[in-house]
Amino acid sequence: MADWLAALDRRAELRAKAGLTRTLRPRAAGDAVVDLAGNDYLGLATHPEVTAAAGRALSAYGLGATGSRLVRGSTDAHHALEDDLARWLGVDRALVFSSGYLANLAAVRGLVQPRTLLVSDAHNHASLIDGCRISGVETIVTPHADVDAVAAALAAAPGRPAVVVTESVFSVDGDLAPLAALHAVARRHGALLLVDDAHALGVTGPAGAGGVAAAGLAGEPDVVVTATLSKALGGAGGVVAGPAEFVRHLVETGRTFIFDTAPPPAVVAGVRAALRLARSGDDLRAELAERAALVVRRLGGAGLEVSAPDAAVVSVTAPGPEAATAWAADCRDRGVAVGCFRPPSTPDSRSRLRLTLSAGVDRADFERALDVIVDCAAVSARSEPGLRAPQSRTEDGS
Amino acid sequence: MADWLAALDRRAELRAKAGLTRTLRPRAAGDAVVDLAGNDYLGLATHPEVTAAAGRALSAYGLGATGSRLVRGSTDAHHALEDDLARWLGVDRALVFSSGYLANLAAVRGLVQPRTLLVSDAHNHASLIDGCRISGVETIVTPHADVDAVAAALAAAPGRPAVVVTESVFSVDGDLAPLAALHAVARRHGALLLVDDAHALGVTGPAGAGGVAAAGLAGEPDVVVTATLSKALGGAGGVVAGPAEFVRHLVETGRTFIFDTAPPPAVVAGVRAALRLARSGDDLRAELAERAALVVRRLGGAGLEVSAPDAAVVSVTAPGPEAATAWAADCRDRGVAVGCFRPPSTPDSRSRLRLTLSAGVDRADFERALDVIVDCAAVSARSEPGLRAPQSRTEDGS
Ligand SMILES: Cc1ncc(COP(=O)(O)O)c(C=O)c1O
Ligand SMILES: Cc1ncc(COP(=O)(O)O)c(C=O)c1O
Repeated sequence: MADWLAALDRRAELRAKAGLTRTLRPRAAGDAVVDLAGNDYLGLATHPEVTAAAGRALSAYGLGATGSRLVRGSTDAHHALEDDLARWLGVDRALVFSSGYLANLAAVRGLVQPRTLLVSDAHNHASLIDGCRISGVETIVTPHADVDAVAAALAAAPGRPAVVVTESVFSVDGDLAPLAALHAVARRHGALLLVDDAHALGVTGPAGAGGVAAAGLAGEPDVVVTATLSKALGGAGGVVAGPAEFVRHLVETGRTFIFDTAPPPAVVAGVRAALRLARSGDDLRAELAERAALVVRRLGGAGLEVSAPDAAVVSVTAPGPEAATAWAADCRDRGVAVGCFRPPSTPDSRSRLRLTLSAGVDRADFERALDVIVDCAAVSARSEPGLRAPQSRTEDGS
Repeated sequence: MADWLAALDRRAELRAKAGLTRTLRPRAAGDAVVDLAGNDYLGLATHPEVTAAAGRALSAYGLGATGSRLVRGSTDAHHALEDDLARWLGVDRALVFSSGYLANLAAVRGLVQPRTLLVSDAHNHASLIDGCRISGVETIVTPHADVDAVAAALAAAPGRPAVVVTESVFSVDGDLAPLAALHAVARRHGALLLVDDAHALGVTGPAGAGGVAAAGLAGEPDVVVTATLSKALGGAGGVVAGPAEFVRHLVETGRTFIFDTAPPPAVVAGVRAALRLARSGDDLRAELAERAALVVRRLGGAGLEVSAPDAAVVSVTAPGPEAATAWAADCRDRGVAVGCFRPPSTPDSRSRLRLTLSAGVDRADFERALDVIVDCAAVSARSEPGLRAPQSRTEDGS
């Protein structure tokens, strides 16, 4: 009996040796940290209209939804948000979940029958992977963003129902999936396309409607979209959007919908206010695009390996998990929060810093933060071989 | 391609024929309905201290947590709640999740190794069942609350790591699991015990600390507790509580912890205020006990088959899914919300009304609601054979 705790300790030690210890670090309200780690891409989490809408719903409804959606948990606020989401995304109907994670579990499961083949991108998010796993059907993992591999997988299973599963903007490297090509291949084989638009919603596409809309696929009858409401929309919760028949199917059979407490009305109302702001937020998206260019110039110019961000997620390669941790810690000590992704939360064996862009971060603070990241790379490189020390700051680097 | 939507329509028609259509019915803020369906057992969702605490955190932090717990999502509010939960539950450490559903997935998965045997009660909640499924290990489903069957399953797998999985108060019928006996059997076989305390937290046990505490098992090194924060605590979110080593294990490896946005600080702060009230809420628990006695007297006295509630969940047998739906609809038309559970959301083939008790519902309204339920049973019985028409109201029935 005490055995299991000793075994857990041994596994923790192994992780510690591999540089994979993870520590929770609480932040205080309004801390002075410059945030290049969070997902509040449009700065809406603290927007006064968002918090005011949430506050009004808090007074009107109380804190919790007090039940699952089919019992007492559906309020006018939930339905209003669902209507607005459906209109924004250009789909028949949208269904709100308490998290993007549970939305993905429901979406994958809802799309499969016993014979279905799932074709899942190698960089897909944990929630999509778990969706495939819990569906219990055959899943082929195709190399990242490899349309030919998807086509081959589908061609090898003629006549079988199939679903191609992908993100639109990948969460770790911030790159775009080839959605239009994936859709063409899926359609040619009579397969469905499931797209997790978590990092694109509010950031890409016409009026910020996301990666599916950007690819011209909004409302296609063989496409299902999921997203979290916790990133550009600044709140929490998830959504599945698509044909009315599919949403009805989830309402009536989706376990993570039926057996889960509805998200709090205040959160839902706040997200709805954020949706209005995101929809009309072309200025915010222009600001993000400028910052994306800036980060590539500044970090790339300093000799760091940096991804060309298609949305608001930027990946910077680190030499290894320990250097990544040290680098992120040095940044934090200098007041800059950056994401630090190491195996097993990376889809490959590479460790990286993940930087996120937010229109809510002061521009001058953002530029200073890039300098800090470059400076700290030089320091962390000393401790672990293999990281090219960054070059000194170039004149056009900021 | 259009095929799949037609197929979904056909499945919806089959469900409709079986009386299993589910419809979302939004409620307005402050509707006049008497709520015998929600899970706000102590009436704390609308308590002014709870909404005030949530409102303060909303102003201080903004709406969303803006990231996962290991990135930017951990705030002082999360850690304060975790400390209070651990103290209340009498465990080393507690870890907050965005839902009880995701907490259960993490807890089950975190407890298994490849050879582990899961022994799961037949009435367990969907999230526990999904936890077993996604763990990918052998799972034996034992008859409901059958300690001998659990002992037999463990005895048949000597030397194998095993976990006994159960709720404390079962969500459909409201009955108590034989926790002390299950723990004794588990310990005898060196197995662990995982208890979902969702419907007991705040309702049973010393200072409302739940079913595990009531059974004298708080803090045992071979027991892990999960719960939702959405029922008696009036908010949303979930918790896993137990030995520090196990919580650390979840922080470092739990997929539904690591890859999920943290719950909103406002929700977490509101729940923490609710926890304080729940802890000192012996008066509220006494009120619930009185109402439990009342509902059995009134409904049982009218000839309905009603469970003897061990906490705040009461099950009333209906003759079939259609009669259950009609009964619940009639109640709703008369201003009383009751839960209506039909297959497949019941662990057996029985349909029932599920009534929940809440100290937040006015006592006189509650008593009137019981009359309405009895009256409507008589009406719905006409439409479906097999339901005993309730007897007329007895004098001591209210
Ligand atoms: C691509 C992707 N999908 C789904 C999720 C899960 O969404 P949520 O945090 O709302 O559970 C995330 C992360 O949060 C994500 O990055
Ligand atoms: C027994 C039980 N466990 C877990 C859950 C899931 O909790 P949550 O609603 O927070 O996801 C529920 C229902 O809500 C439940 O009744």
